[in-house]
Amino acid sequence: MTSKHASPRRTGRRPGPNRTREAIVAAARSAFAKRGYDAVSIRAVARDARVDPALVHRFYGSKEELFVAAMELPVSPGQLVPALLAEGVDDLGERLVRTLLELFDRPATFAPFLALIRGAVSNEHAAALLREFIAREVLGRLAAAASPDRPELRASLAGSQVVGLAMARSVVGVPPLATTDRETVVACVGPTIQRYLTGALPTG
Amino acid sequence: MTSKHASPRRTGRRPGPNRTREAIVAAARSAFAKRGYDAVSIRAVARDARVDPALVHRFYGSKEELFVAAMELPVSPGQLVPALLAEGVDDLGERLVRTLLELFDRPATFAPFLALIRGAVSNEHAAALLREFIAREVLGRLAAAASPDRPELRASLAGSQVVGLAMARSVVGVPPLATTDRETVVACVGPTIQRYLTGALPTG
Repeated sequence: MTSKHASPRRTGRRPGPNRTREAIVAAARSAFAKRGYDAVSIRAVARDARVDPALVHRFYGSKEELFVAAMELPVSPGQLVPALLAEGVDDLGERLVRTLLELFDRPATFAPFLALIRGAVSNEHAAALLREFIAREVLGRLAAAASPDRPELRASLAGSQVVGLAMARSVVGVPPLATTDRETVVACVGPTIQRYLTGALPTG
Repeated sequence: MTSKHASPRRTGRRPGPNRTREAIVAAARSAFAKRGYDAVSIRAVARDARVDPALVHRFYGSKEELFVAAMELPVSPGQLVPALLAEGVDDLGERLVRTLLELFDRPATFAPFLALIRGAVSNEHAAALLREFIAREVLGRLAAAASPDRPELRASLAGSQVVGLAMARSVVGVPPLATTDRETVVACVGPTIQRYLTGALPTG
């Protein structure tokens, strides 16, 4: 199969799997930006990229991994979530905050998150992307594993602190939180996430 | 004193204090947007508006109140902070979250905060505005009253949760947090703010 972008004028690189991947990722990026996360299907992306849906499945495995590739996220929830849960839920909050700070504290790995956050405050589709992907695929899975009591509320509470931490540390740069050593931030914010994921919620 | 915007073509409204106020507020809005909060002085705003600095002081009292007027904030920290502290610090976190939710939950009163947040993620001056004003004038004063131990770090931690809550509830609209009844959110998030403001911080 050849990419629709293959052109006889381009030399030094033959049409083939790389060009096809590029076409798929470009179609996916455009579709997610226009329609959010939930409304996009692998079938629709394949149609936009003019490839067989089976090929998208073969290359990316799932819509989630296709999204990770399209947004150039530095980490996949498919790896992150099981790795965090493998060590249990006892200090899940601190481990999640430590992992996120390792991503937030490097400009190259924070850039895709910054793009998600910037998009989310300026248009509704990007907001849907942020809430549907992060709330469900990352925090939703952690919350579901942590407690049977209202995991969606727990995930959205944890999401509010995670996004606020990203804003304060890496977007807005609020001193001294922006420059406080990582383990101090883990010790401060970790218990918040832990309480949201596993603590008692108010009845009512 | 007459406003520089007074024009003989405009009828039905005489030049006077209202036009002068408009000129001052317009100059202040422009100055804050360009230079952030800290770098702007009443003297500089008066110069831009071509009025006497004493007049700006007489109309607005302080740079903080001038900022509140320029940004059309629904509440002034000069009123909010003393009102919150008047009831002590024991359940300050819950009272702050309740007050903020009352502002966030009405589109008309949330609009100025949304403008601040939108600006902060897209340009550096607006980011300075958000962190310098909210972190110092609101949360900084609450934190300073709540604990002598690292009040700046406490204020920025509380700021991260407050901005994240605004994002999740009113900007991005993360379900179910976006629609959860106010007192449940107060009971969930209030203790986080309380711990940041008055709890033990990690040593180190």
